[in-house]
Amino acid sequence: MSKKQGKPKKIRPEVLKGFRDYIPAEEIARQKLVSVFREVFESFGFSPLQTPALEKIETLKGSDYGADNLATIFSFTGPEQVDMALRFELTASLARYVAGNPELPLPFRRYQIGPVWRVDKPGPGRFREFTQFDIDSVGTASMLADAEIMAAICRSFEKLNLPDYQIRYSNRKILNGVAKFVGISDDLAPDVFRVIDKLEKQGIDAVRNELDQGRVDISGDKIEGLHLPDFQIRSIMWFLLLKAKESSDILTMAKNLLGFVQIGKEMKDVEKEFGWTEAIERMKLGEISIQKIKEREVAEGIREAQEGISELEQIREYLRHFGIPEDKTQVDLTIVRGLGYYTGPVFETSLTDIPEVGSVFAGGRYDGLVERFLGRKIPGTGASAGIDRLLAALMSRGVIKTQTTISEVLVTAMDLEKMPEYIRILNDIRASGIRAEIFLGETRNLTKQLKYGDKVGVPVAVILGSDEFASDQVTVKNLVAGRVQAQEVADREEWLKAENIQETIARADLIPYLRKLLQKIKS
Amino acid sequence: MSKKQGKPKKIRPEVLKGFRDYIPAEEIARQKLVSVFREVFESFGFSPLQTPALEKIETLKGSDYGADNLATIFSFTGPEQVDMALRFELTASLARYVAGNPELPLPFRRYQIGPVWRVDKPGPGRFREFTQFDIDSVGTASMLADAEIMAAICRSFEKLNLPDYQIRYSNRKILNGVAKFVGISDDLAPDVFRVIDKLEKQGIDAVRNELDQGRVDISGDKIEGLHLPDFQIRSIMWFLLLKAKESSDILTMAKNLLGFVQIGKEMKDVEKEFGWTEAIERMKLGEISIQKIKEREVAEGIREAQEGISELEQIREYLRHFGIPEDKTQVDLTIVRGLGYYTGPVFETSLTDIPEVGSVFAGGRYDGLVERFLGRKIPGTGASAGIDRLLAALMSRGVIKTQTTISEVLVTAMDLEKMPEYIRILNDIRASGIRAEIFLGETRNLTKQLKYGDKVGVPVAVILGSDEFASDQVTVKNLVAGRVQAQEVADREEWLKAENIQETIARADLIPYLRKLLQKIKS
Repeated sequence: MSKKQGKPKKIRPEVLKGFRDYIPAEEIARQKLVSVFREVFESFGFSPLQTPALEKIETLKGSDYGADNLATIFSFTGPEQVDMALRFELTASLARYVAGNPELPLPFRRYQIGPVWRVDKPGPGRFREFTQFDIDSVGTASMLADAEIMAAICRSFEKLNLPDYQIRYSNRKILNGVAKFVGISDDLAPDVFRVIDKLEKQGIDAVRNELDQGRVDISGDKIEGLHLPDFQIRSIMWFLLLKAKESSDILTMAKNLLGFVQIGKEMKDVEKEFGWTEAIERMKLGEISIQKIKEREVAEGIREAQEGISELEQIREYLRHFGIPEDKTQVDLTIVRGLGYYTGPVFETSLTDIPEVGSVFAGGRYDGLVERFLGRKIPGTGASAGIDRLLAALMSRGVIKTQTTISEVLVTAMDLEKMPEYIRILNDIRASGIRAEIFLGETRNLTKQLKYGDKVGVPVAVILGSDEFASDQVTVKNLVAGRVQAQEVADREEWLKAENIQETIARADLIPYLRKLLQKIKS
Repeated sequence: MSKKQGKPKKIRPEVLKGFRDYIPAEEIARQKLVSVFREVFESFGFSPLQTPALEKIETLKGSDYGADNLATIFSFTGPEQVDMALRFELTASLARYVAGNPELPLPFRRYQIGPVWRVDKPGPGRFREFTQFDIDSVGTASMLADAEIMAAICRSFEKLNLPDYQIRYSNRKILNGVAKFVGISDDLAPDVFRVIDKLEKQGIDAVRNELDQGRVDISGDKIEGLHLPDFQIRSIMWFLLLKAKESSDILTMAKNLLGFVQIGKEMKDVEKEFGWTEAIERMKLGEISIQKIKEREVAEGIREAQEGISELEQIREYLRHFGIPEDKTQVDLTIVRGLGYYTGPVFETSLTDIPEVGSVFAGGRYDGLVERFLGRKIPGTGASAGIDRLLAALMSRGVIKTQTTISEVLVTAMDLEKMPEYIRILNDIRASGIRAEIFLGETRNLTKQLKYGDKVGVPVAVILGSDEFASDQVTVKNLVAGRVQAQEVADREEWLKAENIQETIARADLIPYLRKLLQKIKS
């Protein structure tokens, strides 16, 4: 205790830049949210796994989060001079776990929740530490696995009483195939997808310009274009602009488009002649088709795109069997997902009444993830939720009610001599399943103790003064109602009675009375 | 996906030295354990708080975990060239939180669960990442706060069906007082306490020798002694050796000892005359007393030790009011706790039938912890559990049953055409609250699917073949019983029927049948 000698320099009580505390009000809400996801995923038979926060740098490096993003890892040279880093997502550790446990029965179905860290530029709502909730099935190529994860997400949102969500999904293979048959090289394709991924935020014109000559963004910076030839851009646009119509659906239209590619017709001629909307309608009727590019690539690309379409049809079918309402999922060929490792179906979940929040639960299939450890492919599919962003959205909409303390009842304690009595009542309340605390501060003044309860946010206070002890009664005060109305009232005594803000009852009736009152306050 | 080109070097799928994965079997058990503590602490009105994993190095430095232990922190220079570190405990962050939120209503009562990191030498059961569960009340000097935390711990162990535990508690003020009246300087006192803290592990002789000339430990290394004068060592020993007797209790004996100090008698004479046991009996009867050292220190030390005793008496009284059985807590003056920051009551919880596990939930009062941020004292008290060590102990004793998967039912799927039917049954099972999965692997072979269920540890399989579809029935197989008995049986068909390993029932009866079967398997 050497610091006691002399006056030590005061330390500023601060968190690191980009970090934050979860105060009880937020942490209580977060736990509620997490418990819903956990409950649903467990009902789907996904088991929990927990991997370390720190991993070897090589484990994280290969996860294709993007080489440029490696700079955003909290990395350092640790004990035994080993290069290590805080995980920035959970999937790389899952891949490492599966690869490192060859005896693990496959398919392996697990969920994991935990913090991840990224050195992003902090900003409003952007933190360097945030919680991810992942769900994955590894060792299965079945579209049932993909559909099941989407179904589990739907069930979670239902359970959260959140009807305004939608999962939009696509398949990497479709745009991969399109890229192939229009002759975009494998090297260039990831850049094309990265541009397409901007569609929702930047709009169709920005994407088109970035595929073409480039554009100037809002801040005046020049963004270099990919300088694709016109027919490549147009072919991509055709697929991106497919939207479901009453009479048909995207997958049928996409299949027709592919069919037309095989027959051969110049897309720009089609566009000139009919315009986009009309052209798509006519394509659907088989009246127009687009040009072949190169025989081999066309054939290969079409096969891949058709495979992608057929997988999405299977998923749609499975979702129907899972009983997911039709409007809750939607094929959307503009969904590509940023991460390089996706190889098949991909999807994003958005809150339809607050789309500006962006995707809150997204994922896809990644058949090559374990490969860099094992040298062989193990197919897998999964999804990840940013719990904090979702939580902020839900709290702002009141879906999850803010509750500043877990405590439901404050037992006030005015007379130290009577402590055994207070504690007895406290024991009774706790034993009944109601969460309760006793005032632990120094003051024995009732008003001050009630003020504490009010500030902390405990909804109900239990009061035992000499009157109550004499008559074997107890006074119960509704602090929530008291808080709301305290300002507006003239005659205090009368108001307390009239509004049932405060009531004195028999000690024997305390527990049922508290139960009823808390029920009333919560509803 | 540039890694697809050429053959990339395979990465070894390894965790860092001293780290580990929590496989589902462990993580399921850990969640059960955590949920019990969480439930009990919430019923006591403690709210959850979550602080960041990374903190500024200054925040952690001052927590008096011991300057020598700073070398065991995972620290590095992070973004913006700030020195940061992974937290090695949760209390320093709590102090930082309280100091940084002056508007926070006090007392502030919170629990927190989360991983902490230390660069300890890894060994069996010793890891560099482990989970702590902390519970604290800040801003209260009341012994009720200390007693309440101890009571909450007792309730948790009860709820875990773990009757064989005991909390032993003491008060720093008692040994502080003893140190003062025998003339041990404030500078030397922490070293004395550090030696005393070794009592349980090293035994009384080792402690005595370390207070005296030093000793040679098991590995042959010389441990330097503190070279205290004989009367100081003896005085300390007197207090450490106090043990409750039928007719009295430690606190009464300690009070008598203090009384005798004031009267004055040489301890070594007492010892020579009576021996330890007899001497303590006589002291209790007021027949002997020990020598005064220096007037002022004696007075101050006695006051402090008396205060410590009186606080423990209060705690004992409160524990009684909380309804904690007497044998579950025990005053034990040898408890000092290693951490420098404790200033009052301290306690340790051990599992009495496996004492070698050591303390599984320990804590104490630390009235100076927030001081280094605020420049003023805010009293606080709390406790911390090492969840992983406790979990390992409970699992080894079978208190928490091992369960390798969360899934309770595997719906097998032999015929892809019938998938809608399988999924319908799966939906029904899940909707009934039973956790279920459908086989997601490639094979359609029933035996292989059942083998998967068996390896994963799903207790029950549901089978629908052509017979079942034709008769609107379903076959349910008890994989647990099957696993246990499969080896010992000759006539397979007969055995399956006789043992109810497998039964074919009406589809309409499936859910109640599964409920009953799972109930039977679990019990």
